[in-house]
Amino acid sequence: MLKPLVVIALGGNAMIKGKQRGTQEEQIENITETAKQIMKIIPNYRVVITHGNGPQVGNLMLQMEAGSYPPHNRPVLSMDICGAMTQAQIGYLIQNILGNLLYTEGPPSRLDPKEKIKVVTIITQVIVSKDDPAFKNPSKPVGPFYTREQADKITSEHPDFVIIEDAGRGYRRVVPSPDPIAIHEKDQINSLLEAGFIVIASGGGGIPVIKNLDGTVKGVEAVIDKDLAGERLAVDISAENFAILTDTDKVYLDFNTPQARGIDKMTVTELENHLEKGVFGSKLKGSMGPKLEAAIRFIKDGGKKVIITRPELAAAALEGKAGTTIVP
Amino acid sequence: MLKPLVVIALGGNAMIKGKQRGTQEEQIENITETAKQIMKIIPNYRVVITHGNGPQVGNLMLQMEAGSYPPHNRPVLSMDICGAMTQAQIGYLIQNILGNLLYTEGPPSRLDPKEKIKVVTIITQVIVSKDDPAFKNPSKPVGPFYTREQADKITSEHPDFVIIEDAGRGYRRVVPSPDPIAIHEKDQINSLLEAGFIVIASGGGGIPVIKNLDGTVKGVEAVIDKDLAGERLAVDISAENFAILTDTDKVYLDFNTPQARGIDKMTVTELENHLEKGVFGSKLKGSMGPKLEAAIRFIKDGGKKVIITRPELAAAALEGKAGTTIVP
Repeated sequence: MLKPLVVIALGGNAMIKGKQRGTQEEQIENITETAKQIMKIIPNYRVVITHGNGPQVGNLMLQMEAGSYPPHNRPVLSMDICGAMTQAQIGYLIQNILGNLLYTEGPPSRLDPKEKIKVVTIITQVIVSKDDPAFKNPSKPVGPFYTREQADKITSEHPDFVIIEDAGRGYRRVVPSPDPIAIHEKDQINSLLEAGFIVIASGGGGIPVIKNLDGTVKGVEAVIDKDLAGERLAVDISAENFAILTDTDKVYLDFNTPQARGIDKMTVTELENHLEKGVFGSKLKGSMGPKLEAAIRFIKDGGKKVIITRPELAAAALEGKAGTTIVP
Repeated sequence: MLKPLVVIALGGNAMIKGKQRGTQEEQIENITETAKQIMKIIPNYRVVITHGNGPQVGNLMLQMEAGSYPPHNRPVLSMDICGAMTQAQIGYLIQNILGNLLYTEGPPSRLDPKEKIKVVTIITQVIVSKDDPAFKNPSKPVGPFYTREQADKITSEHPDFVIIEDAGRGYRRVVPSPDPIAIHEKDQINSLLEAGFIVIASGGGGIPVIKNLDGTVKGVEAVIDKDLAGERLAVDISAENFAILTDTDKVYLDFNTPQARGIDKMTVTELENHLEKGVFGSKLKGSMGPKLEAAIRFIKDGGKKVIITRPELAAAALEGKAGTTIVP
C-alpha cells in the first residue's frame, strides 16, 4: 500500500533566517538543518516540498536593478522569470542536500529496493485569474527600498509599476498577489510521484501565469502566496496531509500577550470561529493569516490534516505529538 | 511502437542572437522561432531539449557583481547556483512557449489521446571528476570583462579566482571546463520520458558537481560544455539521435575560404580523419570543436545519428534532407 502523501511548505526561515543576508553558506547550513528534519518524515510519508522565496527574489531583483545601469547595462527580467530563477536556486540546494542525505542514510526506493529515493525539482507555473481583484490592488511589497528620487525615476521609466511609501523605511514596489487556481505542471508532478521520487515544486508560490482565451498561459508580474499555492498543489496531487513549517511551534490564541495559549488541535470549524472572533492576536496580520486561510481551504477541499509548526517538530507534529493540527 | 528519441542541443543563438543584449523580448522572440522548428520534429520523435546559457549566466554573474557593493551589499552566489538559475530562466521560457504551441496545435499525447503532449524542466546536476585536468588549467572565460584595476581587486578578494588577459578586450575570469561523466538526474528524466513528456534538461551543460568518496555530490565552480553534456544526456537516456543546432547550415571543409564545401553526410571514421588532417579550417577552434567531439563520442557510445545544422533545418536534417549527418 502506498504511504500517505504530505506536501511540506517551507517558510523563508528554512533557507534564510532573521537578519541573515542570504549568503550561500547561510542558505546551505539552514537547508541542511531543514533537510535533516525532512529525513525523519520520509520513512512514513511520500513527500512533496514547496518553499518561499522572498529574500532570494528580493536579492535577485536588486541585483538586476544594480546591473541595469552603465557601464553594465544588463537587461532586467520580469518577475515571472525572476521567480523561475529562484525556484532553481533554492530547488537545486534542497535537491542536492536532501539527495545526498537520502543517498547516505535514506530508506530504499519503493520501486527498486537496491536504489535510494531520489529528488527532483520541477519548474512550476501556477495559473491565476486575469480578473483577480488583486490585479487592481497591488499589495505585496517586493525588491529593494528606494529613496523618493529613485522611486520617481523608476515610475517614469516603468509607468506600469506601483511604488508606495513603506512607513519610515522608504519607497517600495508593490505587485498583485492573486489567488492560485491550478498548478499547470500537475501531471508532471503526479507522474514523478508515481515513480517514487521526492518532488520539489511550486517554489515561491509558483510562476504566476494567466490563461488566455485559447488556453495558452502567459507569465505576469505578480507574487502568489506560497502557502496558498502549496494548498493548491496539495489538492491537485491528492495529498492527505499538508505541513506548513514556519518559525513558531504552534498557532497561539492571544499571541504575544500574557494570555497566549498554544493550540494542539482544532477542527476547521473551530479555526473559523477563532478567526471570526479575532482571538489569534496581532501576529495574525503578518504571515500567519495566509497559513490559516490555506489550512481552512485544504480541509474544505477534502484534505485530512494540516500541521503548523517549526521544521524540527514536523515529524512529531504529523504524529499528533507537537505543533498545531487542524482537522475536518 | 515508441517513436525514436532525439536529444536537441540548442546553441546560444536559439535564445540570444549575435549582438543582442538578451532582453526578455529578444529571448521570447528567438525561443518562439526555435520552438516552431521543434514543433516540426515532435510528430515523428520523442524529444529531449538541452541548451546553452553563456550570455544568460554572463549577465547574471555581472548583475550579482554589480549588486555586491554598497549600498546594496547583496551576496554573490557561486557558479553552480548561477548555472541552476539560468536552467530555470531558459527552461521556463522554452517550457511556456513550447507548451503553449503544443496546446494549440500539437499532436495528442501518446498515453492519453484526449490530452496534448506537455513539457517539463528538470534542474540537472552533471557529475565531473575532481581529478579532471581542467581543474588545474581553467580555460573557459565567464562573466564580465574587467579593467586591470578591477581584476587586481577581485583577485585580492577571491584568491582562488583565475583572471587572464583577453587580447585587447580587458581581463576576464576563466573557470575549469571539465568533461561530463554522468547525468545525476538520469532516472528522473527517463521516468518523465516514459510518461510521455517532453523534457528540458541539463541546461548550460548542467550544474557541475563532483562525487565525494561517500557517493554524495557537491557543486563546483566550473562550466561544462553544453554539447558534450548533451551527448552524455543522450547516451544516459538511450537516445538514437542527437541534434546539435547552431548558426551554420552544415559543417564545412575549409570553412571561411573560397574552397569551402559543406558536408552532407560522413561516417565517424571520416570525421576523425578530417579532424586529424585539420581540413575543417580556422573556425574549428571556436565552438565547432566541441560539437564534432560530441558527435564522435555519441556515435562511439552507440548512437545512430548526429545532425549538425540550423534550427530551421533541423526537421529536414533528421530526414537526411539538410544539414550535416554523422553516422557510424
